[in-house]
Amino acid sequence: MVQLGFTRYGKAEVRVVRIIRGAAPDGGDVIIDRNVSSAVSGDIGDAYYTGDNTNVLATDTQKNLVNVFAKRLGNVEPEEFATKLAQFLVTENEPLTRARVAIDQYGWTRIGTHTHSFARAGDYVRTTTVVHDQDAGTSVVSGLKDLIVLNTTNSEFWGFPRDAYTTLPETKDRILATQVEAQWRFRPGADLDWAGFDWGEAFETAKQVLLDTFAGTYSYALQQTLYAIGTKIIETVPAICEVRMALPNKHHFLVDLELFGETNDNEVFYAADRPYGLIEGIALADDAPDAGLAWT
Amino acid sequence: MVQLGFTRYGKAEVRVVRIIRGAAPDGGDVIIDRNVSSAVSGDIGDAYYTGDNTNVLATDTQKNLVNVFAKRLGNVEPEEFATKLAQFLVTENEPLTRARVAIDQYGWTRIGTHTHSFARAGDYVRTTTVVHDQDAGTSVVSGLKDLIVLNTTNSEFWGFPRDAYTTLPETKDRILATQVEAQWRFRPGADLDWAGFDWGEAFETAKQVLLDTFAGTYSYALQQTLYAIGTKIIETVPAICEVRMALPNKHHFLVDLELFGETNDNEVFYAADRPYGLIEGIALADDAPDAGLAWT
Amino acid sequence: MVQLGFTRYGKAEVRVVRIIRGAAPDGGDVIIDRNVSSAVSGDIGDAYYTGDNTNVLATDTQKNLVNVFAKRLGNVEPEEFATKLAQFLVTENEPLTRARVAIDQYGWTRIGTHTHSFARAGDYVRTTTVVHDQDAGTSVVSGLKDLIVLNTTNSEFWGFPRDAYTTLPETKDRILATQVEAQWRFRPGADLDWAGFDWGEAFETAKQVLLDTFAGTYSYALQQTLYAIGTKIIETVPAICEVRMALPNKHHFLVDLELFGETNDNEVFYAADRPYGLIEGIALADDAPDAGLAWT
Amino acid sequence: MVQLGFTRYGKAEVRVVRIIRGAAPDGGDVIIDRNVSSAVSGDIGDAYYTGDNTNVLATDTQKNLVNVFAKRLGNVEPEEFATKLAQFLVTENEPLTRARVAIDQYGWTRIGTHTHSFARAGDYVRTTTVVHDQDAGTSVVSGLKDLIVLNTTNSEFWGFPRDAYTTLPETKDRILATQVEAQWRFRPGADLDWAGFDWGEAFETAKQVLLDTFAGTYSYALQQTLYAIGTKIIETVPAICEVRMALPNKHHFLVDLELFGETNDNEVFYAADRPYGLIEGIALADDAPDAGLAWT
Repeated sequence: MVQLGFTRYGKAEVRVVRIIRGAAPDGGDVIIDRNVSSAVSGDIGDAYYTGDNTNVLATDTQKNLVNVFAKRLGNVEPEEFATKLAQFLVTENEPLTRARVAIDQYGWTRIGTHTHSFARAGDYVRTTTVVHDQDAGTSVVSGLKDLIVLNTTNSEFWGFPRDAYTTLPETKDRILATQVEAQWRFRPGADLDWAGFDWGEAFETAKQVLLDTFAGTYSYALQQTLYAIGTKIIETVPAICEVRMALPNKHHFLVDLELFGETNDNEVFYAADRPYGLIEGIALADDAPDAGLAWT
Repeated sequence: MVQLGFTRYGKAEVRVVRIIRGAAPDGGDVIIDRNVSSAVSGDIGDAYYTGDNTNVLATDTQKNLVNVFAKRLGNVEPEEFATKLAQFLVTENEPLTRARVAIDQYGWTRIGTHTHSFARAGDYVRTTTVVHDQDAGTSVVSGLKDLIVLNTTNSEFWGFPRDAYTTLPETKDRILATQVEAQWRFRPGADLDWAGFDWGEAFETAKQVLLDTFAGTYSYALQQTLYAIGTKIIETVPAICEVRMALPNKHHFLVDLELFGETNDNEVFYAADRPYGLIEGIALADDAPDAGLAWT
Repeated sequence: MVQLGFTRYGKAEVRVVRIIRGAAPDGGDVIIDRNVSSAVSGDIGDAYYTGDNTNVLATDTQKNLVNVFAKRLGNVEPEEFATKLAQFLVTENEPLTRARVAIDQYGWTRIGTHTHSFARAGDYVRTTTVVHDQDAGTSVVSGLKDLIVLNTTNSEFWGFPRDAYTTLPETKDRILATQVEAQWRFRPGADLDWAGFDWGEAFETAKQVLLDTFAGTYSYALQQTLYAIGTKIIETVPAICEVRMALPNKHHFLVDLELFGETNDNEVFYAADRPYGLIEGIALADDAPDAGLAWT
Repeated sequence: MVQLGFTRYGKAEVRVVRIIRGAAPDGGDVIIDRNVSSAVSGDIGDAYYTGDNTNVLATDTQKNLVNVFAKRLGNVEPEEFATKLAQFLVTENEPLTRARVAIDQYGWTRIGTHTHSFARAGDYVRTTTVVHDQDAGTSVVSGLKDLIVLNTTNSEFWGFPRDAYTTLPETKDRILATQVEAQWRFRPGADLDWAGFDWGEAFETAKQVLLDTFAGTYSYALQQTLYAIGTKIIETVPAICEVRMALPNKHHFLVDLELFGETNDNEVFYAADRPYGLIEGIALADDAPDAGLAWT
């Protein structure tokens, strides 16, 4: 016999753009540009067993809710948007016991002093994932992705074991580049007054710490840089208790120019696509509460 | 203070193509085209704490191993390749206690009777993920992705609750289309004689069951189709004890042609990109052994 | 002063799926899955100069027309669809003098004997581009893209000049792989009875010739393979007078395994991403009529 | 008989990163991050006819030259890089009569005051394409792509003809958004002293004009905005004699919230993917010299 395990369904990638006119300090407009995905769980097994949709909140309805919440909530941080939507989904739909709302938020920059005109920033995507469970409560994980950073020096890699399959030479000076995907978990509502919490400031601080720590760490391994960033974020933003990162090592290989009568003193590099190193790791505050469903 | 949580690093997306000349039944060549990602865990904390690489098997060395194994193993199924490489990584490197090898395998079709010529198939990507842990042993998960399937009819969607945010009309006849990502877990070595196991046949059978069940299920919800597929795979391939799927509902919306004096009796559809429904679920044999590290 | 040069506008990427029920020889359904882009030119300068839209056929209306034509035309080849739509756009809209309709067509394969079920083929995309001009008449260019082909041998590359910047060794045996983008121009209506022409057969023949010629050509340069394919298509399909191709050389580099005590007799390759060679060329029948606007 | 038409081949997408240490005004490093594609034409027919590579400058050699030029030229604008490389390819290789070098250049931003650390900008890609022909001389086309801009208002669309296929309502207030791909042609060397020309300033000026004109144009059609941008660039940068643009109309559809008891006074939009309008056009100075091979 076959059982049904964990189930979850929803509407993915609702591309909602919210304009708040005149809301900028100088009277300019504000754009909130989000890609919102919601998913719900609960007493929905019959849909899987027999196609009985009695308890199925249609994904189309979830899409409608994203739009309605965009209207009603207006100029709020993505964490607040996701939290309110996730809680609404569970509270207002009796069969549903859990909801997950994930948001990608794209940045826009005002064009000069034009009050209505914007250019897409493109330097990174801000992310948040909120899981609300009837029993376990609400968890908030935020972060960013697609942030590409590079140090032109202050990176070494040596001292690794050499066996019959090792060909990589040691280096005392290399480019270190990566495309950051980082997620940080906030302490739960019991430990943190979410109602009055400034999610925007927490994001900006964590991002700045990330950038500064990447730049300021003399690195002997991308692993070391990863842990340094995670540690520093936790130390700087007390509301954050855990940081998870996946850092691809975007290899920049020194091009051999000697054949052409030229030196190459770390000047000309080939930026490779694949394969790439991939470094993953978790930094965790000593007193981090249990993660519960935060990472599910 | 900040602790280090779970860590893992490796070389991702090693694009290795292995030719086995004359190995086809008719004397034609065989191509094995794979994208291999390996990652290891173990006593590697010092790399994260201080950049001490004493225990760090370089990702470049992992890449070399993929190539060496491609040479030595030759014409083996991806499950065998991943298993042997994962076990080698742990066995031969004392500080490492766990390895994960994930493979995407691309299909090629012979061009007519030409013995050396091939066209890429493009209909799906075969996948496998093997985790070998010093203590927990070896787990094998296989599957496929990027398989796009469509039923022109035999799909309904109605009976879902209607609240103030529901606008979707019910339908008794719609297109059902999805891009299948499915992964199936094999019973562990204790329950299955992996040495003599025909991984290729298991894959072909599971894929065929998947296609036939998608096609043969009169569907009232994509959830129902998902569970039917998972159940049927488990019932048909005894070596498989669990199936996990993520099925995007690739919406095909009926175009309103009445405005132009035309009927549209389920003839003309707009294939939408975003948003899309996303249905996830797990089918599990009643006697499925614990998953252990299989899905990590 | 600044003049307005060539202008063109339209609706791009209308994803229309047309189902013709029971139209297959065995009573199964037929799917026509297309991505249609239309664009028009003519007396539309005022839209550019002042935003006067008096002569602007809205791109939304062009989208509607794609859907209406999908309904009305039913099971026709893409060349016929594009031709009729392009001619309609010009004939029915007085200010418009030229229209261009480009179609990508995706293949689907029936799942077993299921009459309503399909899997996306994924091996290539069939293309057509029709330009209809009030004065110059109609031109038809068809082809395919995203077809990846590979020969495991029968490819050499040597005899190229060696200067101070040349490091590539000569080779007498290499993998030859490319992702074909080919377009063939049909003789114009004056030379070809389009009304009774079998576009589908022409496509299948050209595609088969392309595959067979790629496979059957012992190649000393990808340039040679390109010209051989073009020539053979023109020789085999008299309705085709010109073939243009862009063939990326998808490099497969032999991996050096000697360091690990292994030989590598053209067995293990690294499939590189970038950079890649890119070979372009045109094959032209001696009596090819002037191309006119076909390639614009 | 089949003739050979236009031919061209080369190495595409050489990803070269050039570091110039301490070259910034404050002593920080400078990164030049480019994707360089070269292609050559000339007396190369034999490679196509018979695979005789006597006159074939290997694409691998072209790649080497990109790297050598990156070393030798150092901190130069992409226009200078492309011009020198294109001229070298023709001058130094007797059988070659024409070369085309196209460059995508990615922007990087210094991280705070860190002298060695950078984050990728991501707001647009700067482009240049240089064609050098033995007889026709050198042409330079520059521009940018992937720049996404949006006006929250000051855009109308009405007055277009309404026929039996028109369903789009008129609007007096909409979001106007596009992803700019613009290319501007410089006057040839006879009319412009390229040796002393400040390509960097020309780029920055043209980009700024583009942004300001997009923002400052009250638009009745995206066509109008396109022409306004082209005109203004030509009027502001005398060295530019032609501007070509392709502007996808990234539709933002107003979401109907009335069903949920909410107004939507241009506040909540759905950002659609496909289909999209695509507006193309050329602005040309009255005294623009003939384009010659610039756009080939």
